[in-house]
Amino acid sequence: MSAPIFDTISFIGVGLIGGSMARDIKAAGLARHLVGYARRQETRDEIEALGLVDQVASELADAVREADLVVLCVPVGAMGQVAADMAPHLKPGAIITDVGSVKRQVLVDLRQSLSAANPIVGGHPLAGTEHSGPSAALTGLFRQRWCVLTPEADTSILALEKVRALWEAMGSNVEVMDADHHDKVLAITSHLPHLIAYCIVHTATGLEAQTQEEVIKFSASGFRDFTRIAASDPVMWRDIFLNNKDAVLEMLQRFSEDLTALQRSIRYGEGESLQQVFTETRAVRRSIQDAGQAGTFDAREPEAMPLSLLAPYASD
Amino acid sequence: MSAPIFDTISFIGVGLIGGSMARDIKAAGLARHLVGYARRQETRDEIEALGLVDQVASELADAVREADLVVLCVPVGAMGQVAADMAPHLKPGAIITDVGSVKRQVLVDLRQSLSAANPIVGGHPLAGTEHSGPSAALTGLFRQRWCVLTPEADTSILALEKVRALWEAMGSNVEVMDADHHDKVLAITSHLPHLIAYCIVHTATGLEAQTQEEVIKFSASGFRDFTRIAASDPVMWRDIFLNNKDAVLEMLQRFSEDLTALQRSIRYGEGESLQQVFTETRAVRRSIQDAGQAGTFDAREPEAMPLSLLAPYASD
Repeated sequence: MSAPIFDTISFIGVGLIGGSMARDIKAAGLARHLVGYARRQETRDEIEALGLVDQVASELADAVREADLVVLCVPVGAMGQVAADMAPHLKPGAIITDVGSVKRQVLVDLRQSLSAANPIVGGHPLAGTEHSGPSAALTGLFRQRWCVLTPEADTSILALEKVRALWEAMGSNVEVMDADHHDKVLAITSHLPHLIAYCIVHTATGLEAQTQEEVIKFSASGFRDFTRIAASDPVMWRDIFLNNKDAVLEMLQRFSEDLTALQRSIRYGEGESLQQVFTETRAVRRSIQDAGQAGTFDAREPEAMPLSLLAPYASD
Repeated sequence: MSAPIFDTISFIGVGLIGGSMARDIKAAGLARHLVGYARRQETRDEIEALGLVDQVASELADAVREADLVVLCVPVGAMGQVAADMAPHLKPGAIITDVGSVKRQVLVDLRQSLSAANPIVGGHPLAGTEHSGPSAALTGLFRQRWCVLTPEADTSILALEKVRALWEAMGSNVEVMDADHHDKVLAITSHLPHLIAYCIVHTATGLEAQTQEEVIKFSASGFRDFTRIAASDPVMWRDIFLNNKDAVLEMLQRFSEDLTALQRSIRYGEGESLQQVFTETRAVRRSIQDAGQAGTFDAREPEAMPLSLLAPYASD
């Protein structure tokens, strides 16, 4: 057991991420008391049954009243309302953090109702599984995964360091950066890939019935991996796109220009330019392998390339 | 050991696919004699050392002279030239098949030099791994995977059934379809996903240096999976796009229209239409699961969703 970093930590939302944090924090004794809030009785019963926290609250006010750290684990678009509802009930000095995929808009939304007495340290753990809800919570989910922290300019170093210590104690590699920069990097590494996956699956649903059937039948040839992504939570992703609009639109514009150029090369049979682009992209893969980010470090991430995405024949 | 289906089978190209076929055919006794051709001495030495075939040929003429079945395992764009070079040396009645990802253009290219005495049965096994070359050859690579066969209209039933029997003996589920239809289905299930992956990685390489570094550092959040795909063989994929131009351009056009619509919804904050699209795409995933194509049937395909592509937080 480590020395506790916080007395009381309250989770607003105790699903995959909140629940996994609670498991690790409890196991390592990183807080003396854990409170969990969920809107629905059914969810609260589940949290209770799993013993994820010490106290399950049905009212937001009760959930945050004693908190030294509040962890917001709700969709990005719901953060502002939650902050408004809980603001009057917070202790002065209670630190507010979150686990959302968009950081600038969340900081803005939270600050709108929170008093200056409550420091905000935005957070974004790059971790997850395909499941959701309290029963999806796992021990060790954040081990050797990045967690990006985005404090406000006037956040105290003490508040930042306490949140950092919590994530490091759960095994994460912490990176502190500006919220705008986070949003730009995630727009290309995560948000745009998701949008594209949603889009290609959407395009397939527009095909005539017989082709659609065969798309499903032969989905193993690549499409299937996109359908997995495109089965992600619609509300969560709606919120991400609406709240990281500028960065996503900027990356989308660049992507569309590049795609149009590739389209043109295909139309006019410009094999050399295609080959050049496809050769350059290999270097990026090598950089990622050199950076140790190719998936070898973490057994929870299947290292094997999805076979279905691969070339179906070989050359000599 | 089964009864041999062919006396002599010749592989033009003995890499991942040709080599894996050779392993299974040998193990099950599906042919009496296996010949392998490779252009380069180094590759021939490797094939020899691995014992993939009974005879390694350095001349195309020698490789195909006794063949009852020739399996072309070269990039799609090289098929026509190989056919022209081997045509004068084929036995009448020798069946020609291939393993390329594009079927119509390959049929056209092959028929241009092959005599009517040589039936063509186009083939496309939907299987692979991230490796290539003779040493990548695996036993059982095609087990429980689809293999699409695209005969010509005047291909004899006997020729088709012999090639079908070969794939079924290797454990594949065989589907016979028209070459154009294959190309259309694969354009959306495989070719377009690859083009998009190449494109997004290409777009990232255009970002300013610091962002690029962080794209690599935080690639675990989704981008990494695209870099895997975008590290696929450039020549092979150049050939696929150039040889399935019409179907790829058609799907690309539809995709671009849909992407533009999503872009517009993001710009104007139309949350409901985004959510509707993202909800519809879930149904496709369910269809794939219902069709038993979600990856559970084959241990070689990691069932777990790439964690990095998933939502990094939960809601209550």
